Amino acid sequence: GNILKRLDAGEVVIGDGGFVFALEKRGYVKAGPWTPEAAAEHPEAVRQLHREFLRAGSNVMQTFTFYASDDKLENRGQTLSFTGRQINEAACDLAREVANEGDALVAGGVSQTPAYLSGKTEEEVKAIFMKQIDVFVQKNVDFLIAEYFEHVEEAEWAVQVLKASGKPVAATLCIGPEGDLNGVSPGDCAVRLVKAGADIVGINCHFDPETCVKTVKLMKEGVEKAGLKAHYMSQPLAFHTPDCGCQGFIDLPEFPFGLEPRILTRMDMHKYAREAYNAGIRYIGGCCGFEPYHIRALAEELEAERGCLPAGSEKHGSWGSGLSLHTKPWVRARARRDYWEKLKPASGRPFCPSMSTPDSWGVTKGHADLMQQKEATSKEQLEALFDKASQGH
Amino acid sequence: GNILKRLDAGEVVIGDGGFVFALEKRGYVKAGPWTPEAAAEHPEAVRQLHREFLRAGSNVMQTFTFYASDDKLENRGQTLSFTGRQINEAACDLAREVANEGDALVAGGVSQTPAYLSGKTEEEVKAIFMKQIDVFVQKNVDFLIAEYFEHVEEAEWAVQVLKASGKPVAATLCIGPEGDLNGVSPGDCAVRLVKAGADIVGINCHFDPETCVKTVKLMKEGVEKAGLKAHYMSQPLAFHTPDCGCQGFIDLPEFPFGLEPRILTRMDMHKYAREAYNAGIRYIGGCCGFEPYHIRALAEELEAERGCLPAGSEKHGSWGSGLSLHTKPWVRARARRDYWEKLKPASGRPFCPSMSTPDSWGVTKGHADLMQQKEATSKEQLEALFDKASQGH
Amino acid sequence: GNILKRLDAGEVVIGDGGFVFALEKRGYVKAGPWTPEAAAEHPEAVRQLHREFLRAGSNVMQTFTFYASDDKLENRGQTLSFTGRQINEAACDLAREVANEGDALVAGGVSQTPAYLSGKTEEEVKAIFMKQIDVFVQKNVDFLIAEYFEHVEEAEWAVQVLKASGKPVAATLCIGPEGDLNGVSPGDCAVRLVKAGADIVGINCHFDPETCVKTVKLMKEGVEKAGLKAHYMSQPLAFHTPDCGCQGFIDLPEFPFGLEPRILTRMDMHKYAREAYNAGIRYIGGCCGFEPYHIRALAEELEAERGCLPAGSEKHGSWGSGLSLHTKPWVRARARRDYWEKLKPASGRPFCPSMSTPDSWGVTKGHADLMQQKEATSKEQLEALFDKASQGH
Amino acid sequence: GNILKRLDAGEVVIGDGGFVFALEKRGYVKAGPWTPEAAAEHPEAVRQLHREFLRAGSNVMQTFTFYASDDKLENRGQTLSFTGRQINEAACDLAREVANEGDALVAGGVSQTPAYLSGKTEEEVKAIFMKQIDVFVQKNVDFLIAEYFEHVEEAEWAVQVLKASGKPVAATLCIGPEGDLNGVSPGDCAVRLVKAGADIVGINCHFDPETCVKTVKLMKEGVEKAGLKAHYMSQPLAFHTPDCGCQGFIDLPEFPFGLEPRILTRMDMHKYAREAYNAGIRYIGGCCGFEPYHIRALAEELEAERGCLPAGSEKHGSWGSGLSLHTKPWVRARARRDYWEKLKPASGRPFCPSMSTPDSWGVTKGHADLMQQKEATSKEQLEALFDKASQGH
Repeated sequence: GNILKRLDAGEVVIGDGGFVFALEKRGYVKAGPWTPEAAAEHPEAVRQLHREFLRAGSNVMQTFTFYASDDKLENRGQTLSFTGRQINEAACDLAREVANEGDALVAGGVSQTPAYLSGKTEEEVKAIFMKQIDVFVQKNVDFLIAEYFEHVEEAEWAVQVLKASGKPVAATLCIGPEGDLNGVSPGDCAVRLVKAGADIVGINCHFDPETCVKTVKLMKEGVEKAGLKAHYMSQPLAFHTPDCGCQGFIDLPEFPFGLEPRILTRMDMHKYAREAYNAGIRYIGGCCGFEPYHIRALAEELEAERGCLPAGSEKHGSWGSGLSLHTKPWVRARARRDYWEKLKPASGRPFCPSMSTPDSWGVTKGHADLMQQKEATSKEQLEALFDKASQGH
Repeated sequence: GNILKRLDAGEVVIGDGGFVFALEKRGYVKAGPWTPEAAAEHPEAVRQLHREFLRAGSNVMQTFTFYASDDKLENRGQTLSFTGRQINEAACDLAREVANEGDALVAGGVSQTPAYLSGKTEEEVKAIFMKQIDVFVQKNVDFLIAEYFEHVEEAEWAVQVLKASGKPVAATLCIGPEGDLNGVSPGDCAVRLVKAGADIVGINCHFDPETCVKTVKLMKEGVEKAGLKAHYMSQPLAFHTPDCGCQGFIDLPEFPFGLEPRILTRMDMHKYAREAYNAGIRYIGGCCGFEPYHIRALAEELEAERGCLPAGSEKHGSWGSGLSLHTKPWVRARARRDYWEKLKPASGRPFCPSMSTPDSWGVTKGHADLMQQKEATSKEQLEALFDKASQGH
Repeated sequence: GNILKRLDAGEVVIGDGGFVFALEKRGYVKAGPWTPEAAAEHPEAVRQLHREFLRAGSNVMQTFTFYASDDKLENRGQTLSFTGRQINEAACDLAREVANEGDALVAGGVSQTPAYLSGKTEEEVKAIFMKQIDVFVQKNVDFLIAEYFEHVEEAEWAVQVLKASGKPVAATLCIGPEGDLNGVSPGDCAVRLVKAGADIVGINCHFDPETCVKTVKLMKEGVEKAGLKAHYMSQPLAFHTPDCGCQGFIDLPEFPFGLEPRILTRMDMHKYAREAYNAGIRYIGGCCGFEPYHIRALAEELEAERGCLPAGSEKHGSWGSGLSLHTKPWVRARARRDYWEKLKPASGRPFCPSMSTPDSWGVTKGHADLMQQKEATSKEQLEALFDKASQGH
Repeated sequence: GNILKRLDAGEVVIGDGGFVFALEKRGYVKAGPWTPEAAAEHPEAVRQLHREFLRAGSNVMQTFTFYASDDKLENRGQTLSFTGRQINEAACDLAREVANEGDALVAGGVSQTPAYLSGKTEEEVKAIFMKQIDVFVQKNVDFLIAEYFEHVEEAEWAVQVLKASGKPVAATLCIGPEGDLNGVSPGDCAVRLVKAGADIVGINCHFDPETCVKTVKLMKEGVEKAGLKAHYMSQPLAFHTPDCGCQGFIDLPEFPFGLEPRILTRMDMHKYAREAYNAGIRYIGGCCGFEPYHIRALAEELEAERGCLPAGSEKHGSWGSGLSLHTKPWVRARARRDYWEKLKPASGRPFCPSMSTPDSWGVTKGHADLMQQKEATSKEQLEALFDKASQGH
């Protein structure tokens, strides 16, 4: 039952998919705040999603505690019927309940805080993580994940707090090959996280699988060059994002309500699983956009390595083989791997382009002007100026 | 609680989405056979999906009995742990249980049979429908739907059987503007269905919303020209299919595992709801590809006409308004209807085209040759020849 | 040397390409007015283009007299150094000079007039055509073409005037399958042109080859149904226009300076030549966008039917065979027909869509409003209102 | 009349476009060999193209002597009616004749040789360049260009030979930001060329303007870092090539007969001219794909910097202004810069992708296998093996 024993033994660990996007589509999470109060409000929906990922092959049930720090929950103009502690506790119970239906581990997760972004001290930020971890320890999760950090410094603080629990710690940043938002390279980020105590390091969210695997490779190179050791994980988007900038899919004009044409197919997932495995990544999961069938495709691609198929494969023929009984002969002709590997799927949207220009400060003329005028001395001032400048539009 | 009273009163009835595609992604339905044994095998998964559609605004819970005729269940090379009757009964119980959690109606559904396609007599085909209806009557569903018929003749037979139950009857074909597979026009099809006893007629599956609304319009014109009366319904795909032929999305090379880039956004759904409403359609739902958030978008578009928002809108700001609290100003700038209406979403797939060539007999050289040689005198012979011809490839 | 003898004998006649677009790219025609004063101002440029088309296989040299009616030349805010008569004469001399370098015929051409659009009488409009024809008769061209008419009525008047010369007459409209701008169907248009005296009827400009061939087929059906006889011709655009409305490429947002991604390849031209031939069209040429290599591709596709290759083929291997000596083996592998027939050429423009929405009254909200207000009683008034309405933008 | 005086004075020099592609479309150059015998065979066609570029604003007439080295002319399985010397002489005479019609300079050009690629010695390769230069000196061209080199070593040899003539020397490689085919970086290449005697260095052919400008910037950085001085030039393709590999457009599947959808518009050319100017490039021209209107767009963008418009602008309104007299108001609405700058032109090709995968050794599995097996010790052996391996396909 220990994550590190599994990884040390060379096993492949399949993660789960992101809950906020999946439950937004099901009607239980609000896009914008993206907070996890559904764990307490609608436990049956959260439990069902856990079950589907378990059935799809996930070896880990992450507690649905994304953005469940008190400062985040309070920050969003919502009145919630449950306290942060209640939400975190409910999430732990659900994850454990379903994990016990199979052979899965429970991972308690913390993510970046508004407190850090607004310039609070290390002490203040760590106090926020402490409150969540207090629940995870009490509920006795199997290991901890610090995930979705854009600044390695905040992630280091999180790792230090998590590490104090005595449980194994994983840490993933939501950055690309260009590094964190302060320009620290993936290799340097990884080294700092390992030194802070992380047993597993990697990337989650913000970018597509190809970009995430590339970035984890850079992390691995950094760690090895520093003479350190770690395990590696990736939990990317299930959206193609070849066109995004350093802040990832948030800046794409399609975020978050027009991302459908970018959703990865199960064939894309096979490719991701193989590339992640070849890169030495052994904890392979997903984030926003992943549905259970995406996780199942990872497990099916790695059937030989894992020595088993997931339960959900009873309702799936790998690589289209389920089509072999179709009534139409030309559909039966699609029941082969070669067909699906070569397919370049059409969008059915002839009036739409294939790539977008990210919509962010980096490409905003108004912003560049403001930067040049040196009117702004902090991020907050800059935002205020930007807002003022935008009002003319 | 009567569907016809609601429609007669001018109310908008929101349907649900298709279960086989949604549950395939969740791991409970096998692509290929597409049969609904999950109703008995995994009731919690089916119940949860019903609940999500209810929460999204659906006024109708369709029993998950698609392809649940005995001849279909037996036909697919699967050993099932439940009989057809057990599956049909379980599906009725689940639909009723969730319908009672709100103000929804339960509809029992039958669909086209292998028996008809293999040339069985009217009597034999009707006997198959009778077996399913027997369950629906016993479980006292609120009304009946004959759906997913490619030949109006078989649909007429189904309607006649359903009508004998004394319950209101809806009938939808899976055809496009060119008519059924025997070339009967949508207008003529609709007239025949109304004459057979259907109270509600329309289209489901196989084509995108734009095409389905267009086809229902042709049905309505036919019915009105014949001096008849009916209510109209549409339950299209949630996939863009501007490029498909007369047999719909089955013939697209992306069917069924590469359809992701074609998935409609919630903005597309607003457009569909408005166009359907403007065309005089009052039973507006969905089929394959619909997720709960798609149904919710229909309900939100028709908020004024229905006088309410669905429960699920507590976790959604219409037209992106939920983004108004985002931390990044340029994402906040997307919290407006105008932005999402104008967006032409990119696919993130620069190596893929926007349209495909349907892969079917109509465009298959080998087939055209066979047709010319007049070797084949029946559809079955033709299929055999096609299979033989394909083996060279 | 007689066009009708050739066509009566079943010969294929290859036309030339459009001069205004080709010479605009070379710097001798102004986009906007599109007038042919270059015939007098820069004869060497016009002569060279004639020569290139002759060399590419054209059997007809059309005089460069498009829009050379006096009312058009005066209408465009330009001060020209030459009179309309001088331009028409110079164009005849150049066409004859180059035609005599080969075995080509000279065709004098007239096109639609501002006079007709502004409501001048039949007498007045015919007087304008008379002036141009006077030159053609004096210069003894081999036959006459009335081309680029959006209203069949004006084309009939032109044919009647041309016919009086005693020379063979061809007449082509710039309309699509929906008919002329008054809604007269292609079949009816063709019948009226034949009755007015046209020996050859067809389509030129405004639409891509596929659409033009389709429209000529409709013309042919109309003529045959009426028990009449004619020869058929097509001179389409060399631009793909699957997305344009009834007024053709003028209404596409890319007209005229962003049409490059739509340019047909030589492979597309092979397809066009074959389809036109199969449709019974024997006078096969081109219009805007055609370059000499496009005409050569038509001649190469019809090598067997014509019994010869054009002179320009000395510098061309059909279907890529010229690549067989390339230094790189993977480029040599492209020296085969199969490769080029199957190629789906990429645009290199991932931020651009594949189709556009035509930009015209039909889709302009402002216009629709004006129409509803019934403020406008004539096209001119409507234009004035439109202009006024547009000034707010 | 001296190129260096002009550049030293800070003037912008507009180059011409590539002759082989332009004359291939006109029917005078054979794709595959791409040799310039038309200078002797069809001087009127070559003269006319020179004139069109002059009229479009070109300050330089390059002699049409691309690939006119004896070893290249002999190498291509063609029997030519003219000797290499005759072709080179004819090309010089034509360039001078047209240059004298304006204020243009004549540049004699040499390009890479088969001799170098097949491993001939420095002495042998230099002897080939000497033969061409002998003609250029005798015909007294104004300066010399060594262009289209993939290996900087061969370009250095060429520069050394050209420099011996006493005339100013320009040198351009056909490489991208990754450097020459031996992996020498653009900065190092530039330094070597300057040290070899080049007064002007830069890039021509193989890549689109964006890539070429980027590469010249790297060259400039290298030269400046080395404490040297030079002038800079760029003569890119008029095709968008965001998807090509290190060998440029040759490896794209569309090369050379399916490149049409990639052709740059005049608006793209405005952008190129501005970016090149901003990068410090003062000799700004074009290569394959450029038509006279592309060169004119460069000259129009730089009107203020050059203090004049080209002659050809008498037939052109910059930025669409020529449309202001169009009959349709919605076309008149396009007579403004803003419209054309923002336009994302559609391809009219919904079945085609926007990007391609280069078709070359780098991505060919078979090749990679051969490389691993170390069966090949030279490029020639590798080609032979590749050819053998391909025969199975």
